[in-house]
Amino acid sequence: MQNTYAIGIDVGGTNTDMGLVRDDATIVARRSIPTTNYTQLEPYVHDIMEQIESMVAAGDNDKGVEHISLGELTGIGIGAPNGNFYTGCVEWAPNLPIKGLLKFEEEFHKYVDCPVVLSNDANAAAYGEYVYGGARWMEHFIMITLGTGVGSGIVVDGKLVHGHTGTAGELGHNILIPGGRQCSCGRKGCLEAYTSARGIVQTYVELRQQKGTPAEAAQHSDWIGAEVPDKEISSKMIGDAANAGDPLAVETYAQVGEWLGLACANACTFSAPQAIFLMGGPTKVGAPLLEPLKRSFEKNLLNIYKGKCDILMSQLKANEVAILGAAALVRLRK
Amino acid sequence: MQNTYAIGIDVGGTNTDMGLVRDDATIVARRSIPTTNYTQLEPYVHDIMEQIESMVAAGDNDKGVEHISLGELTGIGIGAPNGNFYTGCVEWAPNLPIKGLLKFEEEFHKYVDCPVVLSNDANAAAYGEYVYGGARWMEHFIMITLGTGVGSGIVVDGKLVHGHTGTAGELGHNILIPGGRQCSCGRKGCLEAYTSARGIVQTYVELRQQKGTPAEAAQHSDWIGAEVPDKEISSKMIGDAANAGDPLAVETYAQVGEWLGLACANACTFSAPQAIFLMGGPTKVGAPLLEPLKRSFEKNLLNIYKGKCDILMSQLKANEVAILGAAALVRLRK
Repeated sequence: MQNTYAIGIDVGGTNTDMGLVRDDATIVARRSIPTTNYTQLEPYVHDIMEQIESMVAAGDNDKGVEHISLGELTGIGIGAPNGNFYTGCVEWAPNLPIKGLLKFEEEFHKYVDCPVVLSNDANAAAYGEYVYGGARWMEHFIMITLGTGVGSGIVVDGKLVHGHTGTAGELGHNILIPGGRQCSCGRKGCLEAYTSARGIVQTYVELRQQKGTPAEAAQHSDWIGAEVPDKEISSKMIGDAANAGDPLAVETYAQVGEWLGLACANACTFSAPQAIFLMGGPTKVGAPLLEPLKRSFEKNLLNIYKGKCDILMSQLKANEVAILGAAALVRLRK
Repeated sequence: MQNTYAIGIDVGGTNTDMGLVRDDATIVARRSIPTTNYTQLEPYVHDIMEQIESMVAAGDNDKGVEHISLGELTGIGIGAPNGNFYTGCVEWAPNLPIKGLLKFEEEFHKYVDCPVVLSNDANAAAYGEYVYGGARWMEHFIMITLGTGVGSGIVVDGKLVHGHTGTAGELGHNILIPGGRQCSCGRKGCLEAYTSARGIVQTYVELRQQKGTPAEAAQHSDWIGAEVPDKEISSKMIGDAANAGDPLAVETYAQVGEWLGLACANACTFSAPQAIFLMGGPTKVGAPLLEPLKRSFEKNLLNIYKGKCDILMSQLKANEVAILGAAALVRLRK
């Protein structure tokens, strides 16, 4: 059978990454342009299209395909902050240099006739897992992405949940601890305030204020020493220290796991998923996060869901998920 | 155009109510048998079928239809505790006298060829609202039912969310206050522990222990006096007292509204519904619940959902919703 090809575009605040994706989940070619160079949509899409044309013109060497015409593409999928699936627009994304209501779908249709499908980046990651990754035979699952923020994509009956507004699936802003920590959204106690990279650092810093750096830290080059100022601490540094046995770092991730496990258990009461997938920098720490997370999940899970939902790591590579997820969106129909 | 007819069956722990439902949401006939008379599924379904046959044989006087054959029914819908949509079974429902794994769909198919569709009662209520009630043009909404317990039904893209297990939509067991009140499910802090009829009474009793009965209560026959023992207090009594101005009762419902508003705001982060519907005894109190609920909802709602989700009361009559909801399930296809 002949292969098919889609374009996946990941719109980031700094760079816009794109790839030509073969239906067997191979990124045949990839390009990048600096998003920061643009303040208007027209030249931005124009330059993205130039890159797309160069990728399709180069074809697919692995398969001996010398050239793919634009007309052969199954579609262009775009993962973008505040991307609205229903309208095909990016709506006032705070961290993009191009401001306002951006009619992405309409602008791309000046160049191509194929479907142009837009959603936010966490939804794209979820759908990438469904089309290309570990959720390929799952009709009900949830993806939670940990990073600067906490995002999520929810798949029900094999479809992404976009809701009435087109912006469903914001589990990072589920209020986990009423009256709890200040969140960047202006409210208090959101999951994001506890389990984003920033939330993880905050937990470490709070614990260190309470308990002080352990005296043994000086003998362990991979623990976080008292001389490291709060501002220089990253979630990755805490993760490395946790894996080296630094008790404050271990306790930090134990708390993060406790919170995330509760959030996962709560998510089950909504859509009873077959699995909850995790991805993003802070999940790479491994056992110091996952073990307490799974304990908390089991403890907080309603009886009828016990043994019926797995906590899994994304099976897509960190440097491919954004492009694959965006390309996967092409399979969604409105 | 000719009318169509479905059967709706509400399986309760005490009685089993059923009705012949015309597609314009009219219950043409209704019957009831005592569930408590049965310990086996076969005679139970046999006796239900006798009632169904008598209803269809009597036809629909309003429309001059003298007789409806079983073969003309669009289907039989069943709302039952622990009813599993996928399997057509009731699975170990604790409050039914018939125990075990009950193959409802299979048993009914000994008598009829039409679709037999099973779900739990809160899901049925939600789908009743979609087919016959206030959600008729909504593709995304949530129904929350307050009563002895707290149930929910979630509609996404016009379909009930049943999840991987067939038992999705248990928002009553979303943990709202981690480490909070003991819930009947064995865990702590569930929505149900705060907003079920029992939870409402508990809040009143706790407030009375802290603050004592107001001295003016003796002059108000419709307030709850100090002489009423805790055990005799019902959520309805608190509701009536709240509407008569009893400050403890008002404060009770204000707290219940605060919790329920938070739960509704959290639900929006999942499915971004167009509306959240409420039904059940404790909602009938009206303003003392709804005003604080709406304030809490607005306060706790993530910015992107503001002004996009309404809190509404079910538009179906309390004594019809169970039968209409069950009949509506017939429109669902697996």
